[in-house]
Amino acid sequence: MEATGPPVRESVEFTRIVAFTDGVFAIAITLLVLSLEVPADLRGADLHEFLVDSWPQLFAYFLSFAVIGRFWISHHVIFSLLEDFDRRLIVLNLVYLSLVVLVPFPTELLGDYGDQPDSVVLYAAVVGTAALLSWLMVRTSLHRGYVHTEQRVRAQHTAAGLVGATVVFYISIPVALLSPLAGQLFWLVMVLQGRVSPRARAR
Amino acid sequence: MEATGPPVRESVEFTRIVAFTDGVFAIAITLLVLSLEVPADLRGADLHEFLVDSWPQLFAYFLSFAVIGRFWISHHVIFSLLEDFDRRLIVLNLVYLSLVVLVPFPTELLGDYGDQPDSVVLYAAVVGTAALLSWLMVRTSLHRGYVHTEQRVRAQHTAAGLVGATVVFYISIPVALLSPLAGQLFWLVMVLQGRVSPRARAR
Amino acid sequence: MEATGPPVRESVEFTRIVAFTDGVFAIAITLLVLSLEVPADLRGADLHEFLVDSWPQLFAYFLSFAVIGRFWISHHVIFSLLEDFDRRLIVLNLVYLSLVVLVPFPTELLGDYGDQPDSVVLYAAVVGTAALLSWLMVRTSLHRGYVHTEQRVRAQHTAAGLVGATVVFYISIPVALLSPLAGQLFWLVMVLQGRVSPRARAR
Amino acid sequence: MEATGPPVRESVEFTRIVAFTDGVFAIAITLLVLSLEVPADLRGADLHEFLVDSWPQLFAYFLSFAVIGRFWISHHVIFSLLEDFDRRLIVLNLVYLSLVVLVPFPTELLGDYGDQPDSVVLYAAVVGTAALLSWLMVRTSLHRGYVHTEQRVRAQHTAAGLVGATVVFYISIPVALLSPLAGQLFWLVMVLQGRVSPRARAR
Repeated sequence: MEATGPPVRESVEFTRIVAFTDGVFAIAITLLVLSLEVPADLRGADLHEFLVDSWPQLFAYFLSFAVIGRFWISHHVIFSLLEDFDRRLIVLNLVYLSLVVLVPFPTELLGDYGDQPDSVVLYAAVVGTAALLSWLMVRTSLHRGYVHTEQRVRAQHTAAGLVGATVVFYISIPVALLSPLAGQLFWLVMVLQGRVSPRARAR
Repeated sequence: MEATGPPVRESVEFTRIVAFTDGVFAIAITLLVLSLEVPADLRGADLHEFLVDSWPQLFAYFLSFAVIGRFWISHHVIFSLLEDFDRRLIVLNLVYLSLVVLVPFPTELLGDYGDQPDSVVLYAAVVGTAALLSWLMVRTSLHRGYVHTEQRVRAQHTAAGLVGATVVFYISIPVALLSPLAGQLFWLVMVLQGRVSPRARAR
Repeated sequence: MEATGPPVRESVEFTRIVAFTDGVFAIAITLLVLSLEVPADLRGADLHEFLVDSWPQLFAYFLSFAVIGRFWISHHVIFSLLEDFDRRLIVLNLVYLSLVVLVPFPTELLGDYGDQPDSVVLYAAVVGTAALLSWLMVRTSLHRGYVHTEQRVRAQHTAAGLVGATVVFYISIPVALLSPLAGQLFWLVMVLQGRVSPRARAR
Repeated sequence: MEATGPPVRESVEFTRIVAFTDGVFAIAITLLVLSLEVPADLRGADLHEFLVDSWPQLFAYFLSFAVIGRFWISHHVIFSLLEDFDRRLIVLNLVYLSLVVLVPFPTELLGDYGDQPDSVVLYAAVVGTAALLSWLMVRTSLHRGYVHTEQRVRAQHTAAGLVGATVVFYISIPVALLSPLAGQLFWLVMVLQGRVSPRARAR
């Protein structure tokens, strides 16, 4: 325990931060549905066509649901490792959340304009930076001695997964400038990489 | 206890999953009101007419409120049976929630285009699949030995109710293709069936 | 304890219902802000005029914030009296919440069309019925013996306040049909009556 | 303990108020993203231009995220000091929250019309008054003896920070009437002043 500030982990304080964060995740993930808008005054065949043409929006919805869901699981893991925290972690957590909360905006862009580089680049930048900040929280916790010695390996493993996610999304930016579709396919690497790490953890 | 992964049920972890899930349910159910939009610039008689014509939207609102409310009660029952859980259940829970969160979208469609087959089919597909995933959570919990022996009968009873809901909504799909109204009437079977099972449980 | 069903008050169950309800209240009260819309493409003087003309929307916002806030405080009191609960109370609570969640819709109507009887009538009907259901929860709890003997007087006092709110809003309906403004002034009685009851309780 | 009302701090009551407040903060901060709207039917270059022109909206989003985040941290500190509370604090808390919840409205105005005095004035008035009410909560808690003797210095320190924020935002109102930009620059004083106080606290 090499905390520079006073130890502030009291049950109520910690619980409030976790509850607030979970609340923000829950709301951000639920607001994704608002990107699916129902147009007024469609007739029979038009409604059918509208629904068939909605697949990019539905793809963006499920993609972002998975992305925010994974961030939430990571956060869950990170906070289960903490034995202490300080104001810097609270602030980092808020900065991180400001990007998670932003996700519905690039999601709507991706659904509506997924064939254009700007949308894919913005999406990758927001998600990649959120992963980076998430990694920074783990690193800060390790550096300040807030992670119990027995859990340090697990924390480093989580950090490695978050670096991986950051790299995948950042690399997809130049790719998307060349081909928006290729940028999105690149993200599947993330999903696969993501699926590997929890199994590794379960062992 | 035949858990393949390490037992991860610690108070904070479990509480966070439940709190996150309850948060998502609470938000999804509350966002339903956003499907009721107030048009600008209506005059006296037009406002009256608008409100009178809003009954399909209000019907869709209360129907979906009841549907999400029932899903929440089921989830409540399912999680009260659990003695343990693993990452697969967390992931299943997230996939399930991605459909619960989607409900406001088909609700708005149903309110605006309830006389067209596409709306009724999409609504039934989303709700039916959510019920299916809910059943899958119970089945996985039973299979992996996360339900206490004394509670297995109650879990099987809950599972049976969820299969029933799945079947009702899936059967309503071909019905709705023939007649959207008939498809919606068919759902009343669900409501009645739903009302029977909690009483059965209360005995 | 004359509960007809099995006692289901276990810490987690009760906590989840309370947390879900608080979540719904918190979201419904926060969604009120969405009734305040910012129009696009206003120029200097137009923006000023728009803001000056926004007072009915702001009035409706603060009124509904106070109404939902008071409902939340009542719910708070009601649930602090409970020693037990059953499925009927859960269902009543959901029906009650379906009206609380609806409040942003008549709020937007009231803000935009407060000079027309339909808006005031709908607002009064939704709020009055929510108060009625709230009273029904207290009465059911008393009837089924879920309130501790020492708390019965306080519960009856709370019930009386809720009946008062119901009556005020229902009486305002015919008043609003004659004069929408008079109907809204009538509600001030509710606010005053409401301010009396907590002081009475605090003694 | 010189509480004039009956001591009502029981675990469940206090927890519900805190949970409700955290819920409201979490939702208000998340709804900020809804001020970022995606226009329909943009073509390649137009999308790029739209995103480049979105920086005032993004600035307003991150500013309000920081403002609500700071309010939440203050609230967090205030409530960690309390040993008791009464109905007046609950009501003050609700009035305070009615302004926090309102923040997305002036945020959207600021994003869309940040070059016009009205937007900056309204933003400053809402945020300044929220800070004032926050200070009033601390003062009431101190006055009624709800803060433990050892924590009074910390409470007075928090109160001083909130008075500072109130003054900064209120002073920015006449400044904004002369120059909207100058008014917004003035707020940076708040941010700097805000950054000083937590460090002071950490000592």
